[in-house]
Amino acid sequence: MPASSRFTVAVFGAAGYAGSLAARLLYNHPSFDLRWVTARSDVGRRISDVYPQHRVPMVMEEADIDRHGDVDAAIVAYPHGASAPFVAQLRARGVKVVDLSADFRLRDVETYEEWYRPHPEPELIANAVYGLPELYRDQIIGAELVANPGCYPTATILALAPLARAGAIADVVVDAKSGVSGAGRAATDQTHFVTVDENVHAYGVPRHRHTPEIEQELAVLGNETMITFTPHLLPLDQGELVSCYVTLADPTVSTGELESLYHDAYDGEQFIELVREPAGVRAVRETNICRISLHRDERTGRAIVFGAIDNLWKGTASEAVQNLNLMFGLPEGAGIGA
Amino acid sequence: MPASSRFTVAVFGAAGYAGSLAARLLYNHPSFDLRWVTARSDVGRRISDVYPQHRVPMVMEEADIDRHGDVDAAIVAYPHGASAPFVAQLRARGVKVVDLSADFRLRDVETYEEWYRPHPEPELIANAVYGLPELYRDQIIGAELVANPGCYPTATILALAPLARAGAIADVVVDAKSGVSGAGRAATDQTHFVTVDENVHAYGVPRHRHTPEIEQELAVLGNETMITFTPHLLPLDQGELVSCYVTLADPTVSTGELESLYHDAYDGEQFIELVREPAGVRAVRETNICRISLHRDERTGRAIVFGAIDNLWKGTASEAVQNLNLMFGLPEGAGIGA
Amino acid sequence: MPASSRFTVAVFGAAGYAGSLAARLLYNHPSFDLRWVTARSDVGRRISDVYPQHRVPMVMEEADIDRHGDVDAAIVAYPHGASAPFVAQLRARGVKVVDLSADFRLRDVETYEEWYRPHPEPELIANAVYGLPELYRDQIIGAELVANPGCYPTATILALAPLARAGAIADVVVDAKSGVSGAGRAATDQTHFVTVDENVHAYGVPRHRHTPEIEQELAVLGNETMITFTPHLLPLDQGELVSCYVTLADPTVSTGELESLYHDAYDGEQFIELVREPAGVRAVRETNICRISLHRDERTGRAIVFGAIDNLWKGTASEAVQNLNLMFGLPEGAGIGA
Amino acid sequence: MPASSRFTVAVFGAAGYAGSLAARLLYNHPSFDLRWVTARSDVGRRISDVYPQHRVPMVMEEADIDRHGDVDAAIVAYPHGASAPFVAQLRARGVKVVDLSADFRLRDVETYEEWYRPHPEPELIANAVYGLPELYRDQIIGAELVANPGCYPTATILALAPLARAGAIADVVVDAKSGVSGAGRAATDQTHFVTVDENVHAYGVPRHRHTPEIEQELAVLGNETMITFTPHLLPLDQGELVSCYVTLADPTVSTGELESLYHDAYDGEQFIELVREPAGVRAVRETNICRISLHRDERTGRAIVFGAIDNLWKGTASEAVQNLNLMFGLPEGAGIGA
Repeated sequence: MPASSRFTVAVFGAAGYAGSLAARLLYNHPSFDLRWVTARSDVGRRISDVYPQHRVPMVMEEADIDRHGDVDAAIVAYPHGASAPFVAQLRARGVKVVDLSADFRLRDVETYEEWYRPHPEPELIANAVYGLPELYRDQIIGAELVANPGCYPTATILALAPLARAGAIADVVVDAKSGVSGAGRAATDQTHFVTVDENVHAYGVPRHRHTPEIEQELAVLGNETMITFTPHLLPLDQGELVSCYVTLADPTVSTGELESLYHDAYDGEQFIELVREPAGVRAVRETNICRISLHRDERTGRAIVFGAIDNLWKGTASEAVQNLNLMFGLPEGAGIGA
Repeated sequence: MPASSRFTVAVFGAAGYAGSLAARLLYNHPSFDLRWVTARSDVGRRISDVYPQHRVPMVMEEADIDRHGDVDAAIVAYPHGASAPFVAQLRARGVKVVDLSADFRLRDVETYEEWYRPHPEPELIANAVYGLPELYRDQIIGAELVANPGCYPTATILALAPLARAGAIADVVVDAKSGVSGAGRAATDQTHFVTVDENVHAYGVPRHRHTPEIEQELAVLGNETMITFTPHLLPLDQGELVSCYVTLADPTVSTGELESLYHDAYDGEQFIELVREPAGVRAVRETNICRISLHRDERTGRAIVFGAIDNLWKGTASEAVQNLNLMFGLPEGAGIGA
Repeated sequence: MPASSRFTVAVFGAAGYAGSLAARLLYNHPSFDLRWVTARSDVGRRISDVYPQHRVPMVMEEADIDRHGDVDAAIVAYPHGASAPFVAQLRARGVKVVDLSADFRLRDVETYEEWYRPHPEPELIANAVYGLPELYRDQIIGAELVANPGCYPTATILALAPLARAGAIADVVVDAKSGVSGAGRAATDQTHFVTVDENVHAYGVPRHRHTPEIEQELAVLGNETMITFTPHLLPLDQGELVSCYVTLADPTVSTGELESLYHDAYDGEQFIELVREPAGVRAVRETNICRISLHRDERTGRAIVFGAIDNLWKGTASEAVQNLNLMFGLPEGAGIGA
Repeated sequence: MPASSRFTVAVFGAAGYAGSLAARLLYNHPSFDLRWVTARSDVGRRISDVYPQHRVPMVMEEADIDRHGDVDAAIVAYPHGASAPFVAQLRARGVKVVDLSADFRLRDVETYEEWYRPHPEPELIANAVYGLPELYRDQIIGAELVANPGCYPTATILALAPLARAGAIADVVVDAKSGVSGAGRAATDQTHFVTVDENVHAYGVPRHRHTPEIEQELAVLGNETMITFTPHLLPLDQGELVSCYVTLADPTVSTGELESLYHDAYDGEQFIELVREPAGVRAVRETNICRISLHRDERTGRAIVFGAIDNLWKGTASEAVQNLNLMFGLPEGAGIGA
């Protein structure tokens, strides 16, 4: 690549956990120049004032499309519903966007509106690509708007994709476990240290919004099925584990055949690790890696698949940069540790 | 009860987490006199030297059946296989025993030997009562040998019993989560703080020894089924949550009917709490309480049941004292917080 | 004590960590009837809705002196400054009060106003007794208004009192370490799990409000000195350790003599534990106990004293009940675990 | 630097926390080729089998000086006493060594032998340079044997050096707080999760071995003084905070003058951060940075200095690589994040 291949980028919504980490990754990126960081809270403060560990001395400004829209690329870390109109403005100026909200993940407007709210920019949905690079690399390369997957869907879909492509899933229970950063920066009773410490419980029972996103993608891969998805909050900061209990469409399939599906799908992937021991989150902390292990319960015939990610990295911010890299023809792992 | 109704008791294996807590509960019990505490490691040390929080100044001795077998009751906290021969000796002297090992939990010797090892005292099994007071109170009252349930089975069986009695379970996935004390006091790579901290992963996949114990009890209650049981290790000290995903035999049963099963089973139980929000472990820390919540996934028809206990209390030591109370005609909650 | 010796009590400010725990202890107390619990936030909710672990099903009402002032005793858990006027109203009705705020701790109004704010009820100060039972038991027995010590002062003063009485302290550095519950229930950036987890830092540097309280009490005990007091926030929920580095007035004093001072002061105290190993907080979790160890650095001559408490128990709520017990002629340990 | 400027390196003792991290940093280093990793335990296993997060697929071999001594450089992570003889062998072959043990830190053999054990290679001490780059950069550049500082001394000496150089310290109390990784990988009662969780206590009271190392360096800097140094164990994995309470030789010195000493010393240092808020460890996790804040207690005149590092990074492994970089004329921050 010629030395001139540098691109400008902005992070909109840089005061949150995901946005600030995206800013850190882009601030240190070999091919992107981070030009703007904006926020609603903390306007006027430097990112490093709020997140000293990120060491990004840039000042967060109030978002102004005229001032901040002059970039090649943008990561938008806005709440669901607030994101779409702003993304529309960026797209109108030709800015390539990775959107971290749910606004462009669901391809069916009605499903979105059933689980979220009225969609402000439904016509944009058709242009969005679902940003799971390991599954949709080719589409992402040509995309101008990428919907970054949710953190739970990232881990779950990666854990199940090889089975889904083979139509192997008759039924699946996903028991998900997340560290507290997944709940965001808002200080509430639920994120107070004393509430979380020495505790574990489920939340979002029985209807968590990530359910339709996972079902959609399994269907796209060729496996229509309804999932039972239940997240739990754990006393750790970063890390997400999905434990997937799969009733197989064909219980007579051998474990070796299942393992082959995973090797065929992932052996060349730099950010997927297939392991034999049950995958744990500590091994992927602060990485873009998804660690997956496949097991077989011979008694019940079930396949059990564990997928472990760092919810802020592979689950959000580093995956967003991975998508940006693809969109701009850069090495896929540039700036995210590979 | 007349003032003379006091009983002597010994704890064999008091150096571990469960045995030392049992000793603490009995040392402060209104109707038991804790006469002996024995141990293999730490002989000659006081329990409070090893566990200052228990404040039991008694010295742990090397077990000697002639010296220590002169008691009315005993709690035996020995490893599987080591327990049965010692229990046999105690029973031969007429001592009433609550055994914390797995040796007398499985009613079928062959099943025991498939999952554990050759059974040293198979003829004693028939005399043992499975010590889940909320389910088998009447048998425990007359029992001379009680097999204390495993911690995971305690939570799982209590969470599922109302459904099992109704034969409502077609299939069930149990995703269990435990604090580190469940792994015992042994210092290993797996219990090292740095290994556990900021981590979560499954273990014992796909064959955990608590599986047959749970299946046995569901069958006794009237619901023959195979379960998928997968435990996970969490960065907390005490606490155990089971998340049970139940495919119902009759998917058309109403949620109200399911709730009635739970109220019928547990409304009078002092150590069961039925709650609406997903049960969490912090609410039951250092109690003999099992907290249960029932939910319904209307999309898939599944029932989701959470059961939360303190693995060292209701999962082991306080449940053992609850059993002793029943065996000796004492108030069921004496010495365990009620 | 005759069966009729029961007293009514109210907890004002029961929605916070300290007030709710006080309510739990009094709800289960053998001689107090908890009649009212009030709160500003959470009015209309039961304490057990907010703190399920306390199992106090009473509904928190908005405080109304006419309705709630008909009790024998009250614990007031209000913020500094808000407490004094309310305490004055309670005292006017003859209610005996233990106040958890700082409003009556400092005997000198000017000192209070220098570190806090204008004092709303300065004339009441003279009637207040500083509620450290191990030091001022006799005055507390006759008191009608007791100022419950701060959590840091409780640990620090108990750790240093034997030296202070002997005038042995020339200078002292107190490095204090507290779990997050000491910061209270307010959900802020500072109490967010992700902020606290894997972290430790000092706060309130260099002027923490507990400083004058500790200096006052050391002076009362006979040792005028200025202290350097610096608290740190730790990733644990309950527990407080003070590490006191004492330059001795007489460096030639023997370690044995120092030890004798501690044994003379505390050997008969049921809630003080003198230990040889450096005191740790886990051993006193959920107890009214202060654990103290004394060490000598022979190289520098310094005495090093560690004091460990549970900041919510001995540091606040159980100490308040201990004070109430004394004020009403009850056994000092009634309802607080002894 | 010419493309040929690459150097071979080995890590001896790569199975521990420090050695394995050093191996990871060198495995990914732009100018070093990690040729060998050795260990006593875990021989035949890959580092990534034991530490998956490090992603170093090299197999640990039993150390063999003939086989593994053919390198330009070595990091030796052996226990005190075991290190010196092995270092002597490496030096005899001309290998440049950074030694992580205490064997070459103390310049006075008698002091070493008083605090540790008979020294096996006393004649090598004179050739060793104390490896604190920010203080001794020039000597390290020409050194062939560097004694890597202890983690506590790294933080403490960096926090106090500007004062020591000015002879400003009359007396100092250092209250140190460390995460559990500082205690090493050995699984013991003291490192068991259940022992550490919800706990904090001091250890090594009153004589911790890092004391003479700190005193030596303060004296070298021009400030002879005895320190009181007391470490505490905290429930976190990586991170070390030293809280230094300094009685100033001249209490009339202004705070501004003190601040100038720090800016003069550190303003150009890429791995030192001077901050206003009390330094916390989370901000330096997994970095080679020491974060320092200076405060003044106007009441007592004391200066209070906080120094925060990651004990495994700046406290050990990344500091060792920083030293290697200097010894081989490489950019000081190569391979360690700058």
